[in-house]
Amino acid sequence: MGSNLYLGLVHHPVYDKRKETVATAVTNFDIHDIARCGRTYGVEGFYVITPLESQIQLVERLIHHWVEGGGAAYNPTRKECLSLIRISRTIDEAAKEISERWKKKVTLVVTSASRHPKNIGVADFRQALEDLNNPFLMLFGTGWGVTEEVKDRCDYILEPIEGKGYNHLSVRSAVAVLLDRLLGDRTC
Amino acid sequence: MGSNLYLGLVHHPVYDKRKETVATAVTNFDIHDIARCGRTYGVEGFYVITPLESQIQLVERLIHHWVEGGGAAYNPTRKECLSLIRISRTIDEAAKEISERWKKKVTLVVTSASRHPKNIGVADFRQALEDLNNPFLMLFGTGWGVTEEVKDRCDYILEPIEGKGYNHLSVRSAVAVLLDRLLGDRTC
Repeated sequence: MGSNLYLGLVHHPVYDKRKETVATAVTNFDIHDIARCGRTYGVEGFYVITPLESQIQLVERLIHHWVEGGGAAYNPTRKECLSLIRISRTIDEAAKEISERWKKKVTLVVTSASRHPKNIGVADFRQALEDLNNPFLMLFGTGWGVTEEVKDRCDYILEPIEGKGYNHLSVRSAVAVLLDRLLGDRTC
Repeated sequence: MGSNLYLGLVHHPVYDKRKETVATAVTNFDIHDIARCGRTYGVEGFYVITPLESQIQLVERLIHHWVEGGGAAYNPTRKECLSLIRISRTIDEAAKEISERWKKKVTLVVTSASRHPKNIGVADFRQALEDLNNPFLMLFGTGWGVTEEVKDRCDYILEPIEGKGYNHLSVRSAVAVLLDRLLGDRTC
């Protein structure tokens, strides 16, 4: 399983600290950690979503270094996971690419750190993923999370990871926990 | 649960790429991500273990900034998690401090990315943690993992997170996944 699941790391449109809509900068550690997790759990692709030309070039340079450049020989395991990465300028562009590849509309699932009346549970999503004929794009917001407009147009909003009265995981940790809950060994 | 569990991030003794024993540099993202995870899952403390004076000063500066300095007002949630951090020069020093606080010998549990004949399962460790009268220190290696000597002297070696033929999670992701497996909601 996992081969019908794609990850999307959204740098725009997301909120900043004051709840204004911004485009965040790409974080090197996000790219590496999420690609490594994605490869570990067998996801099909990892979209880095940013409209900023400078950030697109940064990600392209990073991928080139590790997949074709000096990094590929230095650390072949990094090459293996970073080749999962695709770059897209918008959520729509990523969704369109997946839908065209599958000849079927991709289901958009957004994650969030807060509860929402439309939340679906992890178990429901895990079950949906078992239908390998349908592709899913799971979106993670950087900054202070994706905007309400993004949530409104997604098909599903996944329930948050509940902490013990504290709810401030990094996006890197949230990806790791959710991939393990969705695709990891539930018997251990 | 979790209040009898401590995390230890080991910077020495660990292996480098050539399996030589080294002291790695402290990584800012490790400290923040693991502290945020630790606070989310309710662990009792987070030991940053390094013998290097320069690295100790770096961590002290980081904690000072976020717990007492300008960062405390800028982001109070960061203050809340980074106050979990303790610094110790060796694994022994961390273990001794916990044992003295609990007036009971701490159980050392080491994590690893590879299988080991002495592995215990996550379910066994989760059950052990239910005895809140006993403290546990769970160690994570940086670099290419803790040395064999460390494994030999720990009480338990936790089974690795099994990927789909790929086994190269960042230490930040490994902490997130294992805390969720040990202390997170297993019903979802």
